[in-house]
Amino acid sequence: MVKDIGFKSLESVDLAIEKIMQRLKVLGVETVSIYKCFGRVLAKDIISPVDVPEFDRSAVDGFALKAEDTFGASQMNPAILKLVGKVEIGEIPKCSLKEGEAIRVFTGSAIPEGANAVVMLEHVKEMDGFIQIFKSVAPYKNVIRKGEDLKKGEVILRRGTILEPQDSGLLASLGIRHVEVYKKPKVAVISTGDELLPLEESKVPGKIYNSNVPMLCNALEELGFPVFHLGIAKDRTVEIEEKLLRALEYDAIIFTGGTSVGGKDLVPEVVSRYGEIVFHGVALRPGMPTAFGIVRGKPVFMLPGTPTATFLSFYTFVVPALFRMMNVKIVERKWSKKEGILRSRIASEIGIRSLVRVSWQDGEVYPLKSGSGVLSTLVKANAILQISENLEGREAGERVEVILLRNLTEVFE
Amino acid sequence: MVKDIGFKSLESVDLAIEKIMQRLKVLGVETVSIYKCFGRVLAKDIISPVDVPEFDRSAVDGFALKAEDTFGASQMNPAILKLVGKVEIGEIPKCSLKEGEAIRVFTGSAIPEGANAVVMLEHVKEMDGFIQIFKSVAPYKNVIRKGEDLKKGEVILRRGTILEPQDSGLLASLGIRHVEVYKKPKVAVISTGDELLPLEESKVPGKIYNSNVPMLCNALEELGFPVFHLGIAKDRTVEIEEKLLRALEYDAIIFTGGTSVGGKDLVPEVVSRYGEIVFHGVALRPGMPTAFGIVRGKPVFMLPGTPTATFLSFYTFVVPALFRMMNVKIVERKWSKKEGILRSRIASEIGIRSLVRVSWQDGEVYPLKSGSGVLSTLVKANAILQISENLEGREAGERVEVILLRNLTEVFE
Repeated sequence: MVKDIGFKSLESVDLAIEKIMQRLKVLGVETVSIYKCFGRVLAKDIISPVDVPEFDRSAVDGFALKAEDTFGASQMNPAILKLVGKVEIGEIPKCSLKEGEAIRVFTGSAIPEGANAVVMLEHVKEMDGFIQIFKSVAPYKNVIRKGEDLKKGEVILRRGTILEPQDSGLLASLGIRHVEVYKKPKVAVISTGDELLPLEESKVPGKIYNSNVPMLCNALEELGFPVFHLGIAKDRTVEIEEKLLRALEYDAIIFTGGTSVGGKDLVPEVVSRYGEIVFHGVALRPGMPTAFGIVRGKPVFMLPGTPTATFLSFYTFVVPALFRMMNVKIVERKWSKKEGILRSRIASEIGIRSLVRVSWQDGEVYPLKSGSGVLSTLVKANAILQISENLEGREAGERVEVILLRNLTEVFE
Repeated sequence: MVKDIGFKSLESVDLAIEKIMQRLKVLGVETVSIYKCFGRVLAKDIISPVDVPEFDRSAVDGFALKAEDTFGASQMNPAILKLVGKVEIGEIPKCSLKEGEAIRVFTGSAIPEGANAVVMLEHVKEMDGFIQIFKSVAPYKNVIRKGEDLKKGEVILRRGTILEPQDSGLLASLGIRHVEVYKKPKVAVISTGDELLPLEESKVPGKIYNSNVPMLCNALEELGFPVFHLGIAKDRTVEIEEKLLRALEYDAIIFTGGTSVGGKDLVPEVVSRYGEIVFHGVALRPGMPTAFGIVRGKPVFMLPGTPTATFLSFYTFVVPALFRMMNVKIVERKWSKKEGILRSRIASEIGIRSLVRVSWQDGEVYPLKSGSGVLSTLVKANAILQISENLEGREAGERVEVILLRNLTEVFE
């Protein structure tokens, strides 16, 4: 610990943050609609309630059949199958398929029992209730298998995930309407200082307008935390006490001003009378007079009064603490650009820009199986790799840049 | 242009974006409180209404005097000045200073007329209405000059700035309560497709839940745009028409689905009937069937129906367009890490973490004059350079990493 004028000792920034983290816990859990869930932190793993797709389905317009019936087929010696019906999109197949039979299906149709492959419409000659097939078809060709996208019981989203718009889309597709998330802390803001003038009043010589409150209100709302401004306390113990006691109905309390060691610095004194000072003075410049305490279980952040110090101390200590109360630490920020080694080849077409869903993990980049209808890939991926129009793809082993599609987080509890 | 099945030609992504930008303009201007201005785009330069500080003021506790009266002073031959009064903080000096006189001042006191320097309390011996000074003092030593922080008439924030919490703090300190910002577009969202089931309803075999709407609602709200969901249109011209006409009361319209070239793809057809299709089909995968049109001056984004394509097309085309309607292009994102060459030395103290306000410009990093009380530096700076506890500073010419404190933007109009 470093000594500085007025402070017995200065806590290092990292140790100060660790002490804050240790003294906080999650507030609780609440249920929110998936229509308004962005930025909320999942409090429970989400499990897929169904297989997706729920049945084997056709990826193309064509004919469902037994692959075995086409083995050995050629231009000279086509396989000939009897057309026994059709399955519309959204229809549950009524018939099952026997050897030597085919059934007309559409993109998205359920594959009838007995069939195990689909041959595309344009590869078939149709006549008099029969079809001719000129090439053998592999089993499960053009079939999207039941559970291929998501398996019933599979964890889709883990506790501690900060929910993104794409997550709400996947949840909706599964018929999940609500999710359990950690409660957001409600934050009380109090400024102290005889010299402070509320912005609503006329200028008085020698007084200065309170700039910390608009700054903190905007910063907290931008982060999605509800903020309550309890006004200005003069540099008098009784006023600070009164504000502190009122603030205890909120989940976190921010004081600005009155934290330097000196004559009029009363906030830590009042806090220590009602609770505990965890630290006072950190090895941070600007921001040295920052203090942190706990009063009746509520965290009290005492930020320096000078606006630049308030600002930097707020982002250094208060923001990680508020996320801690929702059980997460943000390790990497959404929209960050990250570099990594591509672990398998991606093909792309000249003239087309490709946006490839990838999973970025500690400098490694794994492409996900794509297919634009498969929303789960957008959730399983955490990043996008853009392949520009003038490239035919990217090779395994290449160093690539990706953009994160979500905040990467760790949980505390 | 690349050809693809079904599309006459595909627009390149960059050209498609450029065409959108060219067809849009700003919506208008409105006034907002600085308590709720984060994320809003300034529509007018903000000019400092006053000098900051408004008068020469003392940076220390001590004595204001004429520097010339101390020239030649030494331990053996101190300057002796007559104490003629004091100026409290917030007080307007009543007296002016003559040769051979000194006046007691405090940190923040106005410097009385006639004085041009302050000597610190601890460097002075006081006795019987006189003070002894043992060292000469340079003119303007310990004086913060009028207008040193901000000059009256100086541009503080430029049109096109996306307002940040720190900006609201500076505006408050100047007594500015409201600012003119560009209006935010209100966005109507319509999904099309016979197969879509609203999330509120029970599952029906063959139907799928509408996942695009929760996804777009969350994405738009996260970005701060008001969103209005107008429901699902079936794949019938009359339903799509009815939704389109209703949507014209909003500032921007998003359709999802019904954009592929094929039997049931009716949205571009309806849009072209009431307005103009600017492009249909882009060289983007996923996202190829994206179309853009203008109906009665309102932009209409026609996104593919498959959720992954909707998502990627939304961020590629719609988000830049909505910011265009507020007159900005975001060039670099807030909180991004950027590298640059440090252009002048920064000193730091071992054991203390320093957060240095810097200006990052195209790979060059310029430290700003600091002083934790000077909020304008947090606004003139656009980034923070962190100097860790184990360094004595960073040298000019070193390659450093900084974190952006604001979005960097360009204006269109």
